[in-house]
Amino acid sequence: MRVVVPFATEQPKTRLSDVLSPDERRAFARAMLSDVLTAVRAAGHDPLVVATAPLDEPTTGRLDADASDATSLVQIDASVRVDDSPLSTAVNATLAAAVDPVAVVMSDLPLATPESIRRLTTAGDSSEGVAVAPGRGGGTNALVVRHLDFRVDYHGVSFRDHLRAAEAVGAPVEVVDSFRLSTDVDEADDLVEVLLHGDGVARDWLVDAGFDLRVNDGRVGVRRE
Amino acid sequence: MRVVVPFATEQPKTRLSDVLSPDERRAFARAMLSDVLTAVRAAGHDPLVVATAPLDEPTTGRLDADASDATSLVQIDASVRVDDSPLSTAVNATLAAAVDPVAVVMSDLPLATPESIRRLTTAGDSSEGVAVAPGRGGGTNALVVRHLDFRVDYHGVSFRDHLRAAEAVGAPVEVVDSFRLSTDVDEADDLVEVLLHGDGVARDWLVDAGFDLRVNDGRVGVRRE
Repeated sequence: MRVVVPFATEQPKTRLSDVLSPDERRAFARAMLSDVLTAVRAAGHDPLVVATAPLDEPTTGRLDADASDATSLVQIDASVRVDDSPLSTAVNATLAAAVDPVAVVMSDLPLATPESIRRLTTAGDSSEGVAVAPGRGGGTNALVVRHLDFRVDYHGVSFRDHLRAAEAVGAPVEVVDSFRLSTDVDEADDLVEVLLHGDGVARDWLVDAGFDLRVNDGRVGVRRE
Repeated sequence: MRVVVPFATEQPKTRLSDVLSPDERRAFARAMLSDVLTAVRAAGHDPLVVATAPLDEPTTGRLDADASDATSLVQIDASVRVDDSPLSTAVNATLAAAVDPVAVVMSDLPLATPESIRRLTTAGDSSEGVAVAPGRGGGTNALVVRHLDFRVDYHGVSFRDHLRAAEAVGAPVEVVDSFRLSTDVDEADDLVEVLLHGDGVARDWLVDAGFDLRVNDGRVGVRRE
């Protein structure tokens, strides 16, 4: 199955700015993308990165000799299509052009495993419908679209909106119940999940950058050495 | 399978105190417990509530004539054992006495469905090990214990500690990848998940109490009328 992975090449993950510098956020976002692509491939699918700008041409000096490990960029070895339109517009262009089912998997799901991707891509495969893996907080972290008329809108409470959009075009919906796919990494607390449950490049990146778990008053967070 | 559901009868859910009064927190905690018990039964299992105090004898006037709907208590129809010892101690007493596999499912998982409970109880059923459904933030939301020597410790990063405890007694571990079981409801933001994905007593309770989704700056939260 064609699996589209949208990626914001520049200024990603602004809500991590209290714990990571801009260059570090770029590097960590690439590490998460790398993990998603690895999981998609291991599940037997062919990922296509739809990026807001080319991946291999850094626009600032973050690959210069002074760059620390934490700002050097993981190499991404995948087909990339550059589309600088907004997320929903870019995804809908792909859906409109598709004749076969398309999966859309966000790039900030570093807990994705081959098994969770397989559960996504096989969900609802007996119907011409839509499979949705919700993210925490009303988001849509992954989709499989088998209905030709279904379109996405990632704005607002997109999980609820996607259920309604599916109903509007008569597409049956299957919801994929996965903690791993529900865990998009947006803010510092989310790094706990990567440290605990990740086993790829993103987790290694965090460990190399000095992050560790911190238990405070019964709550688990992260600290940086 | 015997499914133990620990429950703090009094003063539950203190981290919801910014949006719910003490009586409301008691009522909402009971509503969540009710949903968990319904899911466990529908999955074909027999729940046992291990409560810190009897369920049917409110110690304050929250069932009096002045009580609003939001503080009246859902009837719990289940076997209840009262054990006022700390959570881990109470659960370990059950494990120590068991000869058959035991599941331990937290009472604050109102998104639990028969299907997610079934995925839990069938996980690792070919081994004498332990199945764990992690909660967000390093917690352990549900367990199936098939190894006679395994004991729990819910303090700190319990998911990681339970993996180590299983290894220490030579019990193989299976991790259950469920968004529904990962969603324990502790604080106001968690109510978003109940409103969006719940379909039981807890969701009805929130709606009756005037809670609704609120989108603010692209983030989804709750508001109360």
